[in-house]
Amino acid sequence: MTFERPAIARMEGYTPGEQLDDARVIKLNTNENPYPAPEAVATALRELSVAQLRRYPSPTAGAFREAAALYHGLSQENILPTNGGDELLRLIITTFADAGDVIAAAEPSYSLYPVLAAVQGCKFRRLPLDSDWNLPSDFADQLNALNAKIAFLVNPHAPTGKLMTSSAIMLLAEQYNGVLVVDEAYVDFIAPEENYNLCQQINSCKNLVILRTMSKGYSLAGLRFGYGIACKALIEPMLTKTRDSYNTDFISQKLALAAIQSAEEAAKSWLLVRQQREVLLLGLQELGFTVIPSQSNFLLAQTPSGSKAEDLYQQLKARHILVRYFDQPRLDDKLRITVGSAEENTKLLDCLRECLSLAGNSLE
Amino acid sequence: MTFERPAIARMEGYTPGEQLDDARVIKLNTNENPYPAPEAVATALRELSVAQLRRYPSPTAGAFREAAALYHGLSQENILPTNGGDELLRLIITTFADAGDVIAAAEPSYSLYPVLAAVQGCKFRRLPLDSDWNLPSDFADQLNALNAKIAFLVNPHAPTGKLMTSSAIMLLAEQYNGVLVVDEAYVDFIAPEENYNLCQQINSCKNLVILRTMSKGYSLAGLRFGYGIACKALIEPMLTKTRDSYNTDFISQKLALAAIQSAEEAAKSWLLVRQQREVLLLGLQELGFTVIPSQSNFLLAQTPSGSKAEDLYQQLKARHILVRYFDQPRLDDKLRITVGSAEENTKLLDCLRECLSLAGNSLE
Repeated sequence: MTFERPAIARMEGYTPGEQLDDARVIKLNTNENPYPAPEAVATALRELSVAQLRRYPSPTAGAFREAAALYHGLSQENILPTNGGDELLRLIITTFADAGDVIAAAEPSYSLYPVLAAVQGCKFRRLPLDSDWNLPSDFADQLNALNAKIAFLVNPHAPTGKLMTSSAIMLLAEQYNGVLVVDEAYVDFIAPEENYNLCQQINSCKNLVILRTMSKGYSLAGLRFGYGIACKALIEPMLTKTRDSYNTDFISQKLALAAIQSAEEAAKSWLLVRQQREVLLLGLQELGFTVIPSQSNFLLAQTPSGSKAEDLYQQLKARHILVRYFDQPRLDDKLRITVGSAEENTKLLDCLRECLSLAGNSLE
Repeated sequence: MTFERPAIARMEGYTPGEQLDDARVIKLNTNENPYPAPEAVATALRELSVAQLRRYPSPTAGAFREAAALYHGLSQENILPTNGGDELLRLIITTFADAGDVIAAAEPSYSLYPVLAAVQGCKFRRLPLDSDWNLPSDFADQLNALNAKIAFLVNPHAPTGKLMTSSAIMLLAEQYNGVLVVDEAYVDFIAPEENYNLCQQINSCKNLVILRTMSKGYSLAGLRFGYGIACKALIEPMLTKTRDSYNTDFISQKLALAAIQSAEEAAKSWLLVRQQREVLLLGLQELGFTVIPSQSNFLLAQTPSGSKAEDLYQQLKARHILVRYFDQPRLDDKLRITVGSAEENTKLLDCLRECLSLAGNSLE
């Protein structure tokens, strides 16, 4: 006997990337920032006392909302703080898609989307990227033909790291009839000269929700703090109806506040990541990998001919280096590698060189 | 134009109790523990470093699960850590009730239940407590006749503080066909001589889910950490399918772990609360209130004849004391008052005496 809803009994859950608790491991598989969070976050942590936890936190993370609004040049009513970006994804589905509705995403994409859709009993449709990993030019038409209530994009895209321009997304939002979600988890690593800025468009694009997280750009993946940016009409039902009543805790509110107020300091780590991204790209190319230019903090690298991505993944793991291998079409000849610190990237490249030369020898 | 699902557009959100950020306010309205959290929680907080937040936390709060299992004499597979107890309530509904299904609760009860039911598109049925605030003797029959998929109880009950025995709940679970949720948010304040212990029954009651929280007994409402206790078949779909993939953060996991490992120290505050509960009960009775004996950390007190509960609530608020007033049948002649510290309770009683004598004078 089971009490599960039939839709839940049928579905499979999400499998997070490996999180090994081993200090020896060089972890380049889940796109954490290798550099520390801004100093003000450490100060905020030191200033906390347990007595402050006795009472309930601000239900809506008021001080953070205010700071985020200031940072983006928007109003508080445009900001929805959430327990990690993942909570925002769930809230969007809960609020805007009924059971039986269609939810769509470009393929490949974040494997959590279909899981969240299944929980809500929605149909999930995957619209393949073209051979250059760009959205097909008729993407909006495809979404509208499916009557998709929600469409998810990741920009810069994961797992490729490719960037769509703000204007291309605005055009898509205009042509599309449903709620367009742009998951900007990796936005902080975009080169400034790209002039990417979608946040200013939320009051003209009434169907656009932007996801931000403190996990990557602010080195706070352990904190579980993200937020949504959208026009008031989209934020309000999530804020006042579908959100758990105290969805973010006192400590994460304080630390996320300190972090976003230190964006200028955090930007120094974004620059370092961009510099190391270039180092890693060149290093991988030298070893024979074909690498897609990335605006994110990871690289999708096709392994050299004669080597197998899955084998390399296993060989690296045996050497205490974790990268991400996706056992799915178009990706199973590639590795997704997080840009690490200079030292980590050097070790990775050394290990890869060793693995590839061993493979080469064994072929001789 | 709106993108909200019709069910969301129709519903109203939950209104949390007032959380005033004013040091002068004596806050006896949302049942926080007036005594500090165990010392080990402060130590755990001091030992944290921001560098630990760079990586993702344990997706399932592994160390806390282990400690909670040990504390309850159960196995890890019986424990589901959640972002506050409220997340568990949502997960239970998401997992076990389809849109259109019936969810029921004894009335009066926690006003969040109908909101969560509305989000899922479920019908919510309120089954009134009898004149002594007990469950009607045919409660299981009523639930089964409604084909209620989930039934919520709070035990000790809120807002009355009355306790149902473990054996009465086991009998109910046996007779009821759906998932029985017992919200034990206030369990730590039960007098030991009541011998209340439901946790040991989860492997024989296959339809029983128990909610626990660190908010009340461990003085950590600001932390947002709770957990569910149930047999493996009920825990597993919530753990592996419907839960957000990283639902609790690194810091709250560490602090909740330190707290539950210090249950013995926390129990000293539970004793103090019970002692103050008696002091407050007698004090209120002396002032002419009719008070229901409570096994929780609050008292439901009917105001003396000639006074109005709503007026008293307002008069106390004007004097910087917050208590809870419910504008609904059977409760609108009562105040729900959290048991505060000795000093807070004295101030409350003094203020009430003043308000009542002023009211008395104005009647003369």
